[in-house]
Amino acid sequence: MNRLGLPGPSRRLLLGAAAATGAAGPARAAGNMENQPPNQPEWGRSLGPGVIEEPYGTRSRHETSVRRYVPWLTPDRVSSVSFTPLAEQQGIITPSGLHFERHHGGVPDVDPTDYRLMIHGLVERPLIFTLEDLKRLPAVSRIVFIECPANGGMEWRGAQMSGVQFTHGMISCSEWTGVSLGQLLAQCGLQAGASWLLAEGGDASHLTRSIPLAKALDDVIVAYAQNGEAVRPQQGYPVRLVVPGWEGNVWVKWLRRIEVGDRPWFTRWETRGYTDLMPNGLSRQFTFVNEVNSVITYPCPEKPLTGRPGFVEIGGFAWSGAGRVMRVDISVDGGDNWRTAELQEPVLSKAMTRFRIPWEWREGQRAFLQSRAMDETGRVQPPLPRLREARGVESIYHKNSVQTWLVEPDGTVANVQIDA
Amino acid sequence: MNRLGLPGPSRRLLLGAAAATGAAGPARAAGNMENQPPNQPEWGRSLGPGVIEEPYGTRSRHETSVRRYVPWLTPDRVSSVSFTPLAEQQGIITPSGLHFERHHGGVPDVDPTDYRLMIHGLVERPLIFTLEDLKRLPAVSRIVFIECPANGGMEWRGAQMSGVQFTHGMISCSEWTGVSLGQLLAQCGLQAGASWLLAEGGDASHLTRSIPLAKALDDVIVAYAQNGEAVRPQQGYPVRLVVPGWEGNVWVKWLRRIEVGDRPWFTRWETRGYTDLMPNGLSRQFTFVNEVNSVITYPCPEKPLTGRPGFVEIGGFAWSGAGRVMRVDISVDGGDNWRTAELQEPVLSKAMTRFRIPWEWREGQRAFLQSRAMDETGRVQPPLPRLREARGVESIYHKNSVQTWLVEPDGTVANVQIDA
Repeated sequence: MNRLGLPGPSRRLLLGAAAATGAAGPARAAGNMENQPPNQPEWGRSLGPGVIEEPYGTRSRHETSVRRYVPWLTPDRVSSVSFTPLAEQQGIITPSGLHFERHHGGVPDVDPTDYRLMIHGLVERPLIFTLEDLKRLPAVSRIVFIECPANGGMEWRGAQMSGVQFTHGMISCSEWTGVSLGQLLAQCGLQAGASWLLAEGGDASHLTRSIPLAKALDDVIVAYAQNGEAVRPQQGYPVRLVVPGWEGNVWVKWLRRIEVGDRPWFTRWETRGYTDLMPNGLSRQFTFVNEVNSVITYPCPEKPLTGRPGFVEIGGFAWSGAGRVMRVDISVDGGDNWRTAELQEPVLSKAMTRFRIPWEWREGQRAFLQSRAMDETGRVQPPLPRLREARGVESIYHKNSVQTWLVEPDGTVANVQIDA
Repeated sequence: MNRLGLPGPSRRLLLGAAAATGAAGPARAAGNMENQPPNQPEWGRSLGPGVIEEPYGTRSRHETSVRRYVPWLTPDRVSSVSFTPLAEQQGIITPSGLHFERHHGGVPDVDPTDYRLMIHGLVERPLIFTLEDLKRLPAVSRIVFIECPANGGMEWRGAQMSGVQFTHGMISCSEWTGVSLGQLLAQCGLQAGASWLLAEGGDASHLTRSIPLAKALDDVIVAYAQNGEAVRPQQGYPVRLVVPGWEGNVWVKWLRRIEVGDRPWFTRWETRGYTDLMPNGLSRQFTFVNEVNSVITYPCPEKPLTGRPGFVEIGGFAWSGAGRVMRVDISVDGGDNWRTAELQEPVLSKAMTRFRIPWEWREGQRAFLQSRAMDETGRVQPPLPRLREARGVESIYHKNSVQTWLVEPDGTVANVQIDA
C-alpha cells in the first residue's frame, strides 16, 4: 500500500485504465510526473487569473485546431473557402470560431448602425429595416447545418484529399436566431404573381441568388444571431439568410436586399456556377437541397487508431437537407456487412446528427470503414461508383456518396475510393 | 417613382417598417445615409480580408457585450463570480466567451499532456485516466444549463440589482460532450457500500464536493468538450464534471480525482457554505437541484422599450433542474392576470428554454412584467414574499421566485420587488 491507501504497485495499476477495458490506448505520453496523482499538479499550487481577466473569453492556449484552406483550389483567398476541422468537433454545435468560410469578395466590415435590409419588387409596401427593427420583431431560433454544395466536390474525378477536414469540412452547424422571412414579406404584402425572390449580399461580390417563394414562406430565417451572439463577420454579420437544408450559397450573407418577382433571375451565380453539369452535356439547375450524407470522424486520417487493438467507438456525423436523419449503418469491410449505429439525441431536422457504434479492432486487421445514412424521406447515400454512373464526373456539386476510410494494421487511416 | 421603381416618396415609405406594423420602433439612428439603400454601402465597394485571415475566428469589432462582475461582492477577483449578459443572449446556447465564471482560486493553466483523472476509494481497481484515455471511450453529448445556486442571491434581503445580468446572469447553457461517469466507475468496479463520491478540483482551491452515487450513475458526464470544442479554461479545461440540473459548484472544474465512499465527506465546501440557513437557525444541506425558474430578458433594465407604444414581443428564459419546462405564464400587471407564452423548440430536459409572447404596450401604460415557469414535475415558481416566508432572508442560495420588471410609460425598465 502506498500513501493513498491503494493496493500496490499503484503506478502500474493506476496506469492500467485502457488495458483493463481492452481499449486501444494511445502510446502514453508520460508528461511531467510531478503533475500526476497522487501529487498535486503545479497548477494546483498557485492562484490563477481571476474573473473577467477575459471579459469575452477564448479557448485554451493549448488548443490549436484551425480552419484551413487549399492553396491550389482558388487563385486568391478573397474568393475562396476554408474548411472546418471536423475531426475535432464534439457534439453537433460547430464552434463559431471554426465555422467553415466561403467568400467571393472577402469579409466586409459592416457597421451595424448603417445596416439596412431593403425588401422591394412585387410587394404592396417596399420597406427598409434597420437591425433594431429586425430585433424588435417576433424571433425564431433553430439549430441547423449549413453545407456548401461543393463539399466533397474535389473527389468527383478521383482526387483523394488528405483527411476529413477537406473531404467534408464545408459543413457546420449552429443555433441561428432571427426573424421569419415569411413575416417580413407579410409586412410588405405580396402582389399577385409573386413566386420567386432574389437575395443580394452587401459585400463586394454582390452575390445574388433566386429562391422560390414557397421555401421563403416555409422556414427561411433572416438571422442576426448565431450560437447565442451576433452572427460572426465571416458568416454575414450583422444579418444573413438561413435557408434550412439548402446549399450554402443561398444563405446570402451581409444580406442587403430581397426583391420579389414572378420568375427566377438566372443570375451569373446560378448559370455560370452552382449548376451540375451532367454526362449528357445538360446542367441540372436550382438543385438546392443538400442530400443525405454522413462521414466517420473517428477514426479518420487525422485521428488514426493508436495503441493496442481492441475496443474502438466509431463515431461521426450524418445530415440531410430533407429532414431528420433516421438511421446510419456502418460497415468495416467496405460494404459487405452493415450494422446500425446509435444516434445521439436530440436528432433535429436539418441539423448535424452524431452517430456512434462500438467496434472490436483486431490485431493486424485491415478495415474499410464506411457510414451510410438514411433520412426520414427514405433517401439513402449512394456508393461513389453509382453516383458517378448517374452524374458523371463534372458535377462538382452535391456529392453525397459513401466515404471510405482504409484502416491499416498499424492504425493509420487513409482516404480511399473503392468499387463497392 | 425613383430609380428603384418604387412609388415615391420612397424614403418615407421605405423607412416606414415599424410604423406599418405598429411596432414600437427605436428612435432611428440615421447612420451614414451613403451606406443605405438604394446606394451600395461602402463595404460593398471594396474587397475585404479573405479566408483564414482568422484561422480561429472571433466576433465583430462592433460587438461589445461582456461578462461583468460586482466589485463589492468579493474581496478579490481570484475568488469571485462574473455574470453572463443574458439580455444579449439569443437562442439557448450561451456563447462560450460569455459563459459566467465562478472561481475560488483563479483559472489554472492546465497542460493537457500532464492532465490525469484518478478514481479511487471503494473501488475494485483504482485507475488513472489520461485525457486521451477519456476521449477514446464511448462519448455522450447533451445540451444542459449550469446555474450557480447563488443566482439571484443578492436579492433575498431586498437588494435590487441593476439588471438581468446581475439578477440572473449566473446561468449559462452549453452542449457538453464527454464520458458517462457511470461508465468510468464501472471500469473501476464499485465495492459494497459505495454510495457517495467526492469530486476534487485540480486548481489551487481544491474544491471538493460530495455527490450521491445514484446521481453519478444517472446522468453525470466527465466532460472534455463544450459547444463543439475543448472545454474553455474558465470552465475547467481540460475536464470538468457536468451534473445536469444540479447547482454549479458540484460541476467540479479542472477535475483531478474522484473518490468513492460510503457517506458524504462534509467538506468545508458543504458545511461552511453551499448550505441554506433557515429562519429557525437550522441549515438545509445538499440542496443540489436548481429549482424551476425563469426571467424576462426583453424588455428588461438593459433592454428598455423605445420608440412608439404598440407591438412588443416579451421574451426570456425558463429552466428547471428537475426536467423539462412545461409552461411559462406571463403577467403584465404584477400577477393579477396571466397568459401562457409559447416555448421555442427544442424544449430539452435541464436545458435553458426560450419563451415568447406578444404584448400590446399602450400609450402611457405602466406595467409590472412577470414570468412564472412550471416544470414537468409540477413545480412552479413562488412569489418572492412566499419564498421569504418559507426560507427567511439568510438563505443566499436557491432563490427561484418570480422576478418583476417595472415598465415606466417612457419605456425604461426597473427591477422592483412587489408584494404580490
